[in-house]
Amino acid sequence: MAKHDGEPTDGRPAPTPAPASAQPHAEASAEDRLIATYFRPIATHPGAFDLADDAAAIAPPPGCDLVLKTDGLISGVHFFPEDPADAVARKALRINLSDLAAKGAAPLGFLLSIGLPAGLPADWLKAFARGLREDAEHYGCPLLGGDTDRSPGAITVCIAALGTVPHGGMVRRKGARPGDLVVATGTIGDAALGLLLRRDAAAAGRWELDAAMRDHLLDRYLLPQPRNAVAEALRRHASAAMDVSDGLAGDLAKLCRVSDVAADVAVNDVPMSPAARQAVAAEPALIETVLTGGDDFEVIATVAPDRLEALRQEAAAVGVTVTQIGTIGAGQGAHFRDLDGRTLAFRRPSYSHF
Amino acid sequence: MAKHDGEPTDGRPAPTPAPASAQPHAEASAEDRLIATYFRPIATHPGAFDLADDAAAIAPPPGCDLVLKTDGLISGVHFFPEDPADAVARKALRINLSDLAAKGAAPLGFLLSIGLPAGLPADWLKAFARGLREDAEHYGCPLLGGDTDRSPGAITVCIAALGTVPHGGMVRRKGARPGDLVVATGTIGDAALGLLLRRDAAAAGRWELDAAMRDHLLDRYLLPQPRNAVAEALRRHASAAMDVSDGLAGDLAKLCRVSDVAADVAVNDVPMSPAARQAVAAEPALIETVLTGGDDFEVIATVAPDRLEALRQEAAAVGVTVTQIGTIGAGQGAHFRDLDGRTLAFRRPSYSHF
Repeated sequence: MAKHDGEPTDGRPAPTPAPASAQPHAEASAEDRLIATYFRPIATHPGAFDLADDAAAIAPPPGCDLVLKTDGLISGVHFFPEDPADAVARKALRINLSDLAAKGAAPLGFLLSIGLPAGLPADWLKAFARGLREDAEHYGCPLLGGDTDRSPGAITVCIAALGTVPHGGMVRRKGARPGDLVVATGTIGDAALGLLLRRDAAAAGRWELDAAMRDHLLDRYLLPQPRNAVAEALRRHASAAMDVSDGLAGDLAKLCRVSDVAADVAVNDVPMSPAARQAVAAEPALIETVLTGGDDFEVIATVAPDRLEALRQEAAAVGVTVTQIGTIGAGQGAHFRDLDGRTLAFRRPSYSHF
Repeated sequence: MAKHDGEPTDGRPAPTPAPASAQPHAEASAEDRLIATYFRPIATHPGAFDLADDAAAIAPPPGCDLVLKTDGLISGVHFFPEDPADAVARKALRINLSDLAAKGAAPLGFLLSIGLPAGLPADWLKAFARGLREDAEHYGCPLLGGDTDRSPGAITVCIAALGTVPHGGMVRRKGARPGDLVVATGTIGDAALGLLLRRDAAAAGRWELDAAMRDHLLDRYLLPQPRNAVAEALRRHASAAMDVSDGLAGDLAKLCRVSDVAADVAVNDVPMSPAARQAVAAEPALIETVLTGGDDFEVIATVAPDRLEALRQEAAAVGVTVTQIGTIGAGQGAHFRDLDGRTLAFRRPSYSHF
């Protein structure tokens, strides 16, 4: 596309005749070379045509639905400009993979649109592409196509991820029924506490964290661990599911709203890492950060009681812990109760940009 | 997700017990309301679940390949911050629709990821959504899902578009053969000249454009006219095709490189609007802008000679002009010759961000 940084036309000389051998037309542009060097190795799907076409063409597996999700990262909003480039790439892909996991879908591939400011260190893109390639291989989610732009300010990374489920098999937010149990994978609150530590390193001292605990929380913020390993088990057993990105309390409330049910959660049953437990013990108000901070990229799901054990075992077989945290009943909202049975009130149950 | 604009946790009060009736959990966030108000009406595909889930699920038409494309706009780079919001939305969708058209694909739907700075006028998003809805309806390309973020600076709009072709039917860049003819839809150069007029309104006087000519060029820059009406004809008749976004000369060179052929184009045969012809007559150096400026969102294609007439007639039947501009032969590169047979040398044959 014509871009606004082009030179003015006034006074430019008319094109002059030149011998054909001097023609630059057959040469790749710097943008083409960048794509070929850094992104073509990640475009292993045959339908990506080695990124040498305008679009990808993929034949969906017969009998399958495509599950589609887009989510983006902007530096200074979703990650720190000084975060390692490979971690930024991984996070951008993983936040989309996390949605595929919660929906019970197997990754198929992704589209990438990035905006890069001038003056990025020369090896930034190299490291970004390395992180992206390693995760694309690890999660079986190749690059299908992309778009590379110059950004006037922030680094922007937008990914659209495609997954597949057997026809009609996507696990919805809608579907939770009274009598179902509420479960969560992994641990909740680590990433939000890690973000606080990024802003205020001294908090580690106040919370009396040892170095390993501090690093655990920081790492959980920097690098989500999407639960794609349990996608198939969720598809078989969950009545509803979603990933926790905007905070457990608010995301569970969203699931309840769409399902037209209420959730009752025992805060004490919410799975927390030793580091998060230590932080909350030192500063009890942090329980709100744990329950509403977000960036967990764990899965919350509802299951009929007779499915809980199967889900737990299948998840355990792939190394993922599934913990019951509450129950579904008639009514509205997600209610979080302390050990005394009192319902907690949060100042902001989930993240909202607006 | 936890975002960096959150408030520090230090000193915040612990969550306090509250009556269930005071719980905000079941209420939609401002972001949810924004999505419901502005974007849900565009999400008419049943697989978008009224945007009330984390992902879309679509059953691809049997026997079809999915054609996938992503392209983004950033204010100050791809459009002017003062451009009307509805035009920004249309442009964002149309630049992706243009790729589907050139690939012979029928639109299926799209994903949208937008970053909005604080302080946008209240009706900006309303107008953006109106333009998007009207184009989504006009082109039969509903919203499937999206992501709405706060941007620290520029407005960013990233779209991933999905289309369908019969299996194996995507029109590739690769496929041009010696003996084929080179054709272009519509007219070339208008948008690049329109961009110059946006930067330098006085140019209209130097180029001796009347008001209608000036407005034609400005409008062609502001609002691409993707050639989706001829997608089916291209699929039946073209041996190769791509849309012209980075400039005719460079884009045709890309098609030749992938097809391993050379193109010979008669500059005098390149279709130009009366406004563009007038500008070039007044300032001959502008022919380089016409041939390399980009933002045309026309289609260039190659066809066997015995297919030209059928392609032309089918395109004419839907109101699109198809003009032969050159021929394909053995060799490399796209060569543009003037009336004296001399090959033009361009300073920059196509746009590159890097």
